[in-house]
Amino acid sequence: MLILSTWTFGQRANRAAWPTLAGKGASLDAVEIACRDAESDLSNHTVGKGGRPDASGGVTLDASIMRSPARRGAVACVRGFEHPISIARAVMERTPHVLLTGEGAERFATEHGFKPTELLTEESRLEWERWRLAHSKPGRSSPGSNLRRNVEEESHDTIGVLALDAQGVLAGGCTTSGLAFKQPGRVGDSPIIGHALYVEPTIGAAVATGHGELVMSVCGAFLVVECLRRGASPIDAAMGVLKRIQQTQSLTEQDQVGLIVLGADGSWDAASLREGFKVAVKDESRDELIAPRHLL
Amino acid sequence: MLILSTWTFGQRANRAAWPTLAGKGASLDAVEIACRDAESDLSNHTVGKGGRPDASGGVTLDASIMRSPARRGAVACVRGFEHPISIARAVMERTPHVLLTGEGAERFATEHGFKPTELLTEESRLEWERWRLAHSKPGRSSPGSNLRRNVEEESHDTIGVLALDAQGVLAGGCTTSGLAFKQPGRVGDSPIIGHALYVEPTIGAAVATGHGELVMSVCGAFLVVECLRRGASPIDAAMGVLKRIQQTQSLTEQDQVGLIVLGADGSWDAASLREGFKVAVKDESRDELIAPRHLL
Repeated sequence: MLILSTWTFGQRANRAAWPTLAGKGASLDAVEIACRDAESDLSNHTVGKGGRPDASGGVTLDASIMRSPARRGAVACVRGFEHPISIARAVMERTPHVLLTGEGAERFATEHGFKPTELLTEESRLEWERWRLAHSKPGRSSPGSNLRRNVEEESHDTIGVLALDAQGVLAGGCTTSGLAFKQPGRVGDSPIIGHALYVEPTIGAAVATGHGELVMSVCGAFLVVECLRRGASPIDAAMGVLKRIQQTQSLTEQDQVGLIVLGADGSWDAASLREGFKVAVKDESRDELIAPRHLL
Repeated sequence: MLILSTWTFGQRANRAAWPTLAGKGASLDAVEIACRDAESDLSNHTVGKGGRPDASGGVTLDASIMRSPARRGAVACVRGFEHPISIARAVMERTPHVLLTGEGAERFATEHGFKPTELLTEESRLEWERWRLAHSKPGRSSPGSNLRRNVEEESHDTIGVLALDAQGVLAGGCTTSGLAFKQPGRVGDSPIIGHALYVEPTIGAAVATGHGELVMSVCGAFLVVECLRRGASPIDAAMGVLKRIQQTQSLTEQDQVGLIVLGADGSWDAASLREGFKVAVKDESRDELIAPRHLL
């Protein structure tokens, strides 16, 4: 039994999910619990409630959850619900679809008993007001046309979670409020199956965090799992995908991608483009924060 | 020089784009022209203007365009614009993003000079009225909860286009109104980079059509190009991905996926899960409709 989550706030999420794994519960449930914890954590400004709004001041959330190529669900650009990871699970379990977006996803959530909630906290609203003032000065680009350089001034993390349960079953999940003060409607890698998340039961699983566009352009999580399928070790799979990103796209000094890889046999590793990525690890014997290898 | 498009209506689209290719124009322009032709074709009820609405009666469009992993753009769930393929190209050329959705994408389109238009034709509206009456009878599932079985009663095609220009440059595009009478907010494979479309300049390109969810679950177009990268022929790459779909997901008798594969050297092929898929081919010497191999 093992649970791995991105970034420092992943430790709290891992601890929330651990009793489920330790009690022989399903990895899918553990992943959902970990993501829900991050979504409700008001001190985490990159996921769920308390997440930073887009350039227009609205908080929109993206999430995906996966157990296998046949069992996966996601929502993108959803407003007004605290737990997009659970709506993504409902898409997986109660529809023949993979992805619902926007108003349609919100209507689906209401029909399936999810309760609307205000996502914008006073703290995030004030941050957005400050950002808006700074970006409406003459000579600065206006809100809504944020170029990568602008959004890079802000932090932009996502929680991605992978778990292996006592039955040897893999699952993964991702949830985010996206880039801080993002262009309205911008959707990154988190809600896209194969971009930020992929799970192949007999092979392994991967999650990605960082600059979504870099990951999207090479189907990052899917490519990690394809590398595992061809016999790569978790670290070689992760580094191979980071090299593919480096080879195919021009990187700025701020660009960051972090990957966590978990094999079906329980072997795992993580890597990032640059220093700074953290992975929270929890199993029977440890509860740690790891700084993995980086490519550049 | 070569242009390949999905389905019978691809012939008309190929002919619209051919003068550009024949005049040594760019494959990216040819792909956009072919997709725009399908979007404006009122006899085509699966793409653009005249496309079938979702279960709530609204027409929402998805599109993607790609030249390389660093040059790609897409829009999903966009209402009220005739040419989502051109909005996708604007996302590629004028933002650091890959995907814009919903209202944000519509606002971006307006800001970049695209003119709003009514997409729902009287013919499509009447079709939807008939569908709604049939599906609101007691014992039938209600609109908005359409299971795969329901939507399969309707046709659901997408135009996918691949082109190779006189300079040897590859490009691809996809545009669709999605499943007829789909669950509002449902987004399929068409606007997702690596799902319905992938282009790697030195390797090859692929487009997918059919049941988007089956393609999304295995990053279909990306996996085709990965197979080419490892040395597979276009037909082996296509059949390999169809087998992966068959192995990983339970198929109904109606499930269909069609793939077109174009190598950077100009070699190409196509294949589908079942009989019935058509590919429109145009080059200097031919203008044909081909029935490719099928797996089942």
